[in-house]
Amino acid sequence: MKKYVYFFGGKKAEGGEHLRNLLGGKGAGLADMVNLSIPVPPGFTITTEACVYFYKNNMTFPAGLKEQVLENLKKVEKAMGATFGDSKNPLLFSVRSGARVSMPGMMDTVLNLGLNEKTVKGLAVLTGNEWFAYDCYRRFVQMYGDVVLGLKPQSKDEHDPFEEIIDAKKRERKIKLDVELSVKDMKELIGSFKDIIKKRLKMVFPEDPLEQLWGAIGAVFKSWDTPRAIAYRELNNIPDTWGTAVNVQCMVFGNMGADSGTGVAFTRNPSTGENVFYGEYLLNAQGEDVVAGIRTPLPINQKQKTDKSVQSLEEVMPNIYEELIKIRGTLEKHYRDMQDIEFTIQDKKLWMLQTRSGKRTAFSAFKIAIDMVKQGLITKEEALMRVEPEQLNQLLRPIFDPKEKEKALKEGNQVAKGLNAGPGAATGKVVFNAEDAESWAARGEKVILVRMETSPEDIRGMNAAQGILTSRGGMTSHAALVARQMGKVCVAGCGELDIDYRKKAISVKKKTIKEGEYISLDGTTGEVFIGEINTIPSEVLRVLVDKTLKPKDSPIYQDFAMLMKWADETRKLGIRTNADEPAQAAVAVAFGAEGIGLCRTEHMFFEGNRIDAVREMIVADTLEGRVKALKKLLPMQKKDFTGIFKVMNGLPVTIRTLDPPLHEFLPHEEKDIKVLSKKTGIPYDALFSKVQSLHEVNPMLGHRGCRLGIVFPEITEMQARAIFEAACEVKKKGIDVKPEVMIPLVGHITELSLQKEVVDRVAQEVMKKYGTKIDYKVGTMIEIPRAAITADEIAQVAEFFSFGTNDLTQTALGMSRDDAGKFLRFYVDNNIYPFDPFQRIDENGVGKLMKIGVELGRKTRKNLKIGICGEHGGEPNSVEFCYKIGLDYVSCSPFRVTIAKLAAARAVIKEKKKVAVPD
Amino acid sequence: MKKYVYFFGGKKAEGGEHLRNLLGGKGAGLADMVNLSIPVPPGFTITTEACVYFYKNNMTFPAGLKEQVLENLKKVEKAMGATFGDSKNPLLFSVRSGARVSMPGMMDTVLNLGLNEKTVKGLAVLTGNEWFAYDCYRRFVQMYGDVVLGLKPQSKDEHDPFEEIIDAKKRERKIKLDVELSVKDMKELIGSFKDIIKKRLKMVFPEDPLEQLWGAIGAVFKSWDTPRAIAYRELNNIPDTWGTAVNVQCMVFGNMGADSGTGVAFTRNPSTGENVFYGEYLLNAQGEDVVAGIRTPLPINQKQKTDKSVQSLEEVMPNIYEELIKIRGTLEKHYRDMQDIEFTIQDKKLWMLQTRSGKRTAFSAFKIAIDMVKQGLITKEEALMRVEPEQLNQLLRPIFDPKEKEKALKEGNQVAKGLNAGPGAATGKVVFNAEDAESWAARGEKVILVRMETSPEDIRGMNAAQGILTSRGGMTSHAALVARQMGKVCVAGCGELDIDYRKKAISVKKKTIKEGEYISLDGTTGEVFIGEINTIPSEVLRVLVDKTLKPKDSPIYQDFAMLMKWADETRKLGIRTNADEPAQAAVAVAFGAEGIGLCRTEHMFFEGNRIDAVREMIVADTLEGRVKALKKLLPMQKKDFTGIFKVMNGLPVTIRTLDPPLHEFLPHEEKDIKVLSKKTGIPYDALFSKVQSLHEVNPMLGHRGCRLGIVFPEITEMQARAIFEAACEVKKKGIDVKPEVMIPLVGHITELSLQKEVVDRVAQEVMKKYGTKIDYKVGTMIEIPRAAITADEIAQVAEFFSFGTNDLTQTALGMSRDDAGKFLRFYVDNNIYPFDPFQRIDENGVGKLMKIGVELGRKTRKNLKIGICGEHGGEPNSVEFCYKIGLDYVSCSPFRVTIAKLAAARAVIKEKKKVAVPD
Repeated sequence: MKKYVYFFGGKKAEGGEHLRNLLGGKGAGLADMVNLSIPVPPGFTITTEACVYFYKNNMTFPAGLKEQVLENLKKVEKAMGATFGDSKNPLLFSVRSGARVSMPGMMDTVLNLGLNEKTVKGLAVLTGNEWFAYDCYRRFVQMYGDVVLGLKPQSKDEHDPFEEIIDAKKRERKIKLDVELSVKDMKELIGSFKDIIKKRLKMVFPEDPLEQLWGAIGAVFKSWDTPRAIAYRELNNIPDTWGTAVNVQCMVFGNMGADSGTGVAFTRNPSTGENVFYGEYLLNAQGEDVVAGIRTPLPINQKQKTDKSVQSLEEVMPNIYEELIKIRGTLEKHYRDMQDIEFTIQDKKLWMLQTRSGKRTAFSAFKIAIDMVKQGLITKEEALMRVEPEQLNQLLRPIFDPKEKEKALKEGNQVAKGLNAGPGAATGKVVFNAEDAESWAARGEKVILVRMETSPEDIRGMNAAQGILTSRGGMTSHAALVARQMGKVCVAGCGELDIDYRKKAISVKKKTIKEGEYISLDGTTGEVFIGEINTIPSEVLRVLVDKTLKPKDSPIYQDFAMLMKWADETRKLGIRTNADEPAQAAVAVAFGAEGIGLCRTEHMFFEGNRIDAVREMIVADTLEGRVKALKKLLPMQKKDFTGIFKVMNGLPVTIRTLDPPLHEFLPHEEKDIKVLSKKTGIPYDALFSKVQSLHEVNPMLGHRGCRLGIVFPEITEMQARAIFEAACEVKKKGIDVKPEVMIPLVGHITELSLQKEVVDRVAQEVMKKYGTKIDYKVGTMIEIPRAAITADEIAQVAEFFSFGTNDLTQTALGMSRDDAGKFLRFYVDNNIYPFDPFQRIDENGVGKLMKIGVELGRKTRKNLKIGICGEHGGEPNSVEFCYKIGLDYVSCSPFRVTIAKLAAARAVIKEKKKVAVPD
Repeated sequence: MKKYVYFFGGKKAEGGEHLRNLLGGKGAGLADMVNLSIPVPPGFTITTEACVYFYKNNMTFPAGLKEQVLENLKKVEKAMGATFGDSKNPLLFSVRSGARVSMPGMMDTVLNLGLNEKTVKGLAVLTGNEWFAYDCYRRFVQMYGDVVLGLKPQSKDEHDPFEEIIDAKKRERKIKLDVELSVKDMKELIGSFKDIIKKRLKMVFPEDPLEQLWGAIGAVFKSWDTPRAIAYRELNNIPDTWGTAVNVQCMVFGNMGADSGTGVAFTRNPSTGENVFYGEYLLNAQGEDVVAGIRTPLPINQKQKTDKSVQSLEEVMPNIYEELIKIRGTLEKHYRDMQDIEFTIQDKKLWMLQTRSGKRTAFSAFKIAIDMVKQGLITKEEALMRVEPEQLNQLLRPIFDPKEKEKALKEGNQVAKGLNAGPGAATGKVVFNAEDAESWAARGEKVILVRMETSPEDIRGMNAAQGILTSRGGMTSHAALVARQMGKVCVAGCGELDIDYRKKAISVKKKTIKEGEYISLDGTTGEVFIGEINTIPSEVLRVLVDKTLKPKDSPIYQDFAMLMKWADETRKLGIRTNADEPAQAAVAVAFGAEGIGLCRTEHMFFEGNRIDAVREMIVADTLEGRVKALKKLLPMQKKDFTGIFKVMNGLPVTIRTLDPPLHEFLPHEEKDIKVLSKKTGIPYDALFSKVQSLHEVNPMLGHRGCRLGIVFPEITEMQARAIFEAACEVKKKGIDVKPEVMIPLVGHITELSLQKEVVDRVAQEVMKKYGTKIDYKVGTMIEIPRAAITADEIAQVAEFFSFGTNDLTQTALGMSRDDAGKFLRFYVDNNIYPFDPFQRIDENGVGKLMKIGVELGRKTRKNLKIGICGEHGGEPNSVEFCYKIGLDYVSCSPFRVTIAKLAAARAVIKEKKKVAVPD
């Protein structure tokens, strides 16, 4: 019989961290804490395997589960000296989800389970608090009715049907707050709840605690597949196949009076990484009240206090606080990582309900990782694994231009201050719901999503927004957690704001901010400004690129530099950059790029009045005409290359010859054609018919790439001349130059050999003219399937390969990136492709072609240098894949160089540790 | 030392047919004839290897060649008792090309080589004919100056510089014909020729016969790479790498007087295949005169005579004719094939100059092959190898509607009659040069190319024309040969026509036909008509499809049927057809198609007023709206399928679900959108924005194929319902039905499994409703690279594969067929791709993906049925490739079914014989 249930409680638990995949994060953490002698209400965990079985078998439980649950129930009863369903000393349970990785708030929970008309009376007697007992019962019926029985609003006009009943009762009793309801009211409410369930769902609310339990277990399993859970998994790349565990745990009550309470805390500051205990609590409250952001919680200790009028837990319950501090130490030592914990105090006794690795900002991830290396808690390699590559983005995210910010402060535009929940600066137009955030962003607007509080349904909108602003909730509220995880700018719990959803307006300090008006958020300080404030580069950038700040004056930079040093020591992949101009190249070099992997020559064509010469070349109908126009372009291109060669100072520079179809350089509107006609003296009709004749049905698959250089070799010739003349001149100045000429869109060896002939011939001519030798290579992009599968042939000519995975994805999948919008979102939502293949390499398809390309290429040319220059080159999972298939380097945009470096280092560590990659 | 030179002469030759690749066709034939004791002027052949060396080594000759040539020259001198360069008894040579396969007239020839100021005198004394000797010398200097020394016109105004000198001389002497020139004139002409060579080329005309010989050998090698030779190879799929051999052979003279002559003949009638000797001759002429079509030659025997006023060779030289008849028998017995021979009679002695397999029409290819099987000369398999699959096209080519033709005859529109050089009927607008033929055809006009005679430069124009009409030349003229080979309708040697190139008009029987006016050619009878005459199906079609002719009344059909029977017995590949309508399917079944491999459902969408419902479906913004419109389409699609199932009568029918992007069904012009707006009641703006929103940048890679059925499963559902309801209803009538539902553009297994779920669900529903079982399959197109490389995954779901090589070629090569025009011609011309990959499968690229797909697919599903339904399925080389990689069937358009059958049979024979496929 397979083991589906794991007990925890007393001094011993069956599970632990090593069974995380089976028990989920919450279950593993509870088991660990029990084994560490930390007080945890006893209970048991039903494994994710049971959930997987449940989905594979038409929503049924596996054989043996029933028996195992009953057996463990007995153990809990024994540990607590109470009995489930007993009318005198009833045991109550919470039933909670817990997946392999945390999906906060995404799945369902049932609390106070086990209450019925009999046991509620026992609870009342036992606690001596009838009101409390019936409040629990009322909450249970409501929660169970919603989550398990599925009673939902019948129409758009109806809100939550239970809440409507409560509201009606309050109106009848002329009271405002739930706490004002009497025991009698509560009993009547419970009766009304059961009636509506009977009427609408044609069923009797279950009195049998065991029936309640099985209903709740099934409901938690089912909540794995709600739309919001699916959306969350999609955003966080969590496979649908994992399933959730279910934790059935004794209830403890933070809402039993002034000696009770509940709280959440981080073992270090999750925002800054500072090594101080950091948390929030509420007296006489249940855990949900803190997390949901409905009441703004209080600081856990004095250090954290900003408002003298509130009392911290440290002051109110010093013993409990002391116990928490001890637990903090135990957990950090055990997990060797910052923990995010939940606790409840019932009648002066502390119970731990959760521990897990805490989400953190990039700043804190750095600081914690580096501090822990210094403390000797973790190794450098572990530190590298603690910082997600994408988090580096946050370090590089802009801040407000200090001058503009100062001006905004002087003008009194700083209208509020909240919690600095997500660092960075953001500016955008105000929207008041997630749908608007998505749709405005889709049409290119920068928006700030403003909500009283956020909920799991808002995830897509939060992702679409530049920043998030809430009026309620603390540092551990939903908005703050999700924003930190997404790397979004967030100001949370900004209570001064009066948000009116219907009027779509914020009132604050007698000012009104309407939908569509600009606000600006400083997520690092928590400040909120009316109006738009320009942003400037981050601190790291100011040290590295702008040199306006000295390294010694920037602790953030120092942490950043240390981590990058460790990454550089570890990684084996080379990291290059895609840069078309000297300025871009300089940024990349500052970030540590080891060369240029893609310099697109055509981007230079659009600068200034060069486009005139380009157009003249295109509309010329004769070779002579083209050559004449190309002669004008030569000195311009040469100047570009000179600049880049100087910046790169001896590092290799891969220059791609002309790639886009010629019609991209021509105007298409009548008026623009007329302007061009005047400029060039070519009759309008002739120009118009040229534009027409260059029109293509599928430009992606048309006359572009090397097909241009083959039909018009004079273009390649000009570009080669510009490259080698620039190289020779720079070299004569004593700067080393290593150009690598890259021919795009090659599908057949002959295409490459024809173009290589041109490049080699020009190179020889130019080197002879300048009397110098340039160490150069000629290679090709591998970006159409035929190139990958004939790579053995192509490598006979190519001196290097570079995978152009953008086009390779388009051709291998037969999917135009420009047109995929109509179906790709649907495809990803429905798990046809688990990820967007344009963001992350489709390993099974495009990746297989890459593997074939690498194998065949190296079969012909053993030491063939192979890189990637598609946008995937800066995406961490894809970087790891590139390392695994044996590429020599990845090339990415300058701002992703450090991300790629870290990903490359992590790839080595993962391989060494044989850490399984999530499938 | 490698052997580069092979001797032939006397009773013994070193070479023969087995060395054809080395000696070329001409060299091998000459050697064979020598060994068969047929009189051949002695000589030697320089191998194609020497030519290949020549091109690989910067136009130099290989070591040893010089010695071997000199040695063989001695042998020839010995055999002839004459000496090269001797002033008394000079030996003269012809130097001719000869590739592995015949490329008539494409390469260069030098005649009378060895003449100089000394030897010409010897020749004059020897022949007692000073005029003849100087005429030879004049011709030699002119030919050598052109071919070897390369003296060409200096400007557009100048014609041939040598001809201009001759013309000037004639004007000076007030004579018209070359034969009127005196010996003195000739000597002066030779002097002028040498002067212009000296002046323009800065060189002295070589007097040394050996220098002349090496010049000529190099020139023949070089003529392998002239543009016209390259164009010819491209049209005939001859690899550039083969090179040509050079035949150096003693001159014999057909122009030495009335006892001399020259001729060409076929051992059977090349047009009809009739087993009679068939040829033409001219007295006192050189071979070039017959082939070039400058003088219209005379029939070789009485049987062939149509004009009593001329004398056949049989009458003029009965002994020579008798000898030719004997040689004819010897050659047919030896080669077991119809031969095309050239001969010269010098002073009553017959010399054979060439024998080769004769080009023939499809009609004659059939007849000869079948006759030879009956005669016991060849086997059935050999017969199958004698008929090129593409030749079948000719048998199926239309003829004139007899009624219209009769009317045209009555109205006196038959204005001339020429030689029936290329059978079939063609009608089109008159053009007078090859360039016009190409450009008019390119814009979609049907043209008839009218020339006095054609030359190798005209090949592209001939290919572009519907038919070719010449006023000069015989059945063996350039026009006739090439037309037969291309399968073009051709009427040759129609001397009644007076063609005026400058006026662009034909005068005939007092009528004038101007450029752009219609004429019609009956290539089977040789008749020429003014005006357009509608064509009707061929005889074979009338027997097979129209049933207007009985098999027993059609000998052509009987030959056709016999060959098809042999093909069916031999082939292993199944042959299906691509058909969208019952009528098409019926034609294919008549041709013997064994099923439908591709039925495109969307073609049905355009019929009648269905498009309204289609458009209604597309512009609907809701599921309900789409479902409502689809309901209207259901009965229509069902009717189509019912018709097809009935026609196919139990044969499998592969139906592809909707493939093209939806915007293809919508109007794009303002006025058309307005019409649609009125029809549907949808406001113009809404419709316009729908059209806009569906616009795609790269529709080939856009929202089409299964991506439609996945986002809009209701479309697939409707189509599946139509298929299975039709199937059930037809089956209930007692007709067996085997539908195979094919999902297009699948790239990922999940796409297929989602669509298969829909199809299976609907199939179950419908079969249950009708209470019957349908034997059906669900499979997929393999038409994007990802599908091929993940075929092992896809085969988990797919019950069959069908390669969509049209799209697979586009995606694998990254080449849009609609846009490739701008570079693909250039690519094929420059041998980047040796063939147009959209016509013939690119075996190295697309073919490799197909192989991968077959291997992976069958790894998962051992007996997976795999076919091809791209247009390559009817192209003989591609059919052979499909057989080699193990496909089960090919599917092609109805009119290519028999071609595919024959190709499939030949593939089996080739494999059996391990006949090397040209590389």
